Amino acid sequence: MRILRLTLAYDGSGFVGWQRQAAGNSVQGLLENALAPLEGGPVTLHGAGRTDAGVHALGQVASVGVTFAHDAATVRRALNVNLPVTLRVLEVEDAPEGFHARFSARLKSYRYQLANTPVVSPFLTPFVWHLPERLDVDKMCAAAALLKGEHDFSAFQGAGTAVMTTVRTITVSTLTWQGALSGDAALQDLLVYEVSGTGFLRHMVRAIVGTLVEVGRGQRPVHSISKLLEGVNRHEAGVTAPARGLFLARVDY
Amino acid sequence: MRILRLTLAYDGSGFVGWQRQAAGNSVQGLLENALAPLEGGPVTLHGAGRTDAGVHALGQVASVGVTFAHDAATVRRALNVNLPVTLRVLEVEDAPEGFHARFSARLKSYRYQLANTPVVSPFLTPFVWHLPERLDVDKMCAAAALLKGEHDFSAFQGAGTAVMTTVRTITVSTLTWQGALSGDAALQDLLVYEVSGTGFLRHMVRAIVGTLVEVGRGQRPVHSISKLLEGVNRHEAGVTAPARGLFLARVDY
Repeated sequence: MRILRLTLAYDGSGFVGWQRQAAGNSVQGLLENALAPLEGGPVTLHGAGRTDAGVHALGQVASVGVTFAHDAATVRRALNVNLPVTLRVLEVEDAPEGFHARFSARLKSYRYQLANTPVVSPFLTPFVWHLPERLDVDKMCAAAALLKGEHDFSAFQGAGTAVMTTVRTITVSTLTWQGALSGDAALQDLLVYEVSGTGFLRHMVRAIVGTLVEVGRGQRPVHSISKLLEGVNRHEAGVTAPARGLFLARVDY
Repeated sequence: MRILRLTLAYDGSGFVGWQRQAAGNSVQGLLENALAPLEGGPVTLHGAGRTDAGVHALGQVASVGVTFAHDAATVRRALNVNLPVTLRVLEVEDAPEGFHARFSARLKSYRYQLANTPVVSPFLTPFVWHLPERLDVDKMCAAAALLKGEHDFSAFQGAGTAVMTTVRTITVSTLTWQGALSGDAALQDLLVYEVSGTGFLRHMVRAIVGTLVEVGRGQRPVHSISKLLEGVNRHEAGVTAPARGLFLARVDY
């Protein structure tokens, strides 16, 4: 069977999330509906990560088995014509046999945007968590660094999930100031948390960010992070940061 | 009288433009309505540039005479609470006597964003002119450079305006590739036209961009720009580029 690999970007604001639901627009549902006329029947799309409602993607990857023969450029064009502009197929490629967007993924990278300014730019509001208060960013950076490595992330796992193990390996965990717009037009800097890992638990990135913010507010010492990586309960860690600041940035295979 | 200077950013997509109209949300109208309760009566706001419907601002400046005594930080907070998130007051300052946002302006800078890619990122769609076709960018850069200096820009003046003279001085006119998002998450580069000048005619930047695009498409030679700067008619120049790619970036005093 021919396997197609799709690279996707979406503004998650208007979607119920990746996964097809009984009601509402899901990324998976819209794409499966757009693929069906090409295939002449239903298809099943697999995403690298099941982003929650309101979460965005800069480089989500999906795979689908198809029997049609249209070339990749034609498929991309046909899909984009039938999708809302808030969901774009950036690339379509033929993938090797056995490729599966989720099971073949080697590394996933997320990006979380914080606006630590009194006023948020109108162009950023839907894509940041606005925190106007004073934050100790140095302490947040130190806390972020502690998360790197192989740990038991059960303290950062959202409810309602059943997984074999809550041990995950984080290869990148950094907090940096980044310009939101390049050049002279830069309106304001964002505080961006970037995290890469072999796998993530449900709500894990958002729970990490919520915890880092508590460190920044002085509500939790930096060294408390280490205790959270020893398999403690969800209530030991911080709040779950809002979905709108989170982007699935990239998936590596 | 106390003069306040306001620095504003707005996503122009949902506005009828800067100027108060009989119907629809204007930037001026929303701000005057938000200022009135502070003043206890109507106020008149002056903008540095009257942006058209759909045009955005990163750093529009406005001035207003008031009699109330609230400090600048309180005014900013009160205004932002009563304005939609698509219109933000970035700064409020006390200005010297006689300050007028339009008449005191020394230099205005605009930014126009072109997406020269097959697929536009969902995060950029409302803020670019999408041109998927092949463009000769080197020729467009050469044409942009010819616009610098003092010229008669009548070929780039929109209809329905009466001005004393169509001679204007352009101090910066460059076209460059710029990253739309910094860091690894950069989805795609934009082609950005940046122009600064002492004053602009109605639709002038959009008419310039439309003309540059015709150069890029090979529909018009680079050297034809020089002839357009000799006070010819509007129909000699190119089309008016769509409003959604244009930003009033900055006003210098």
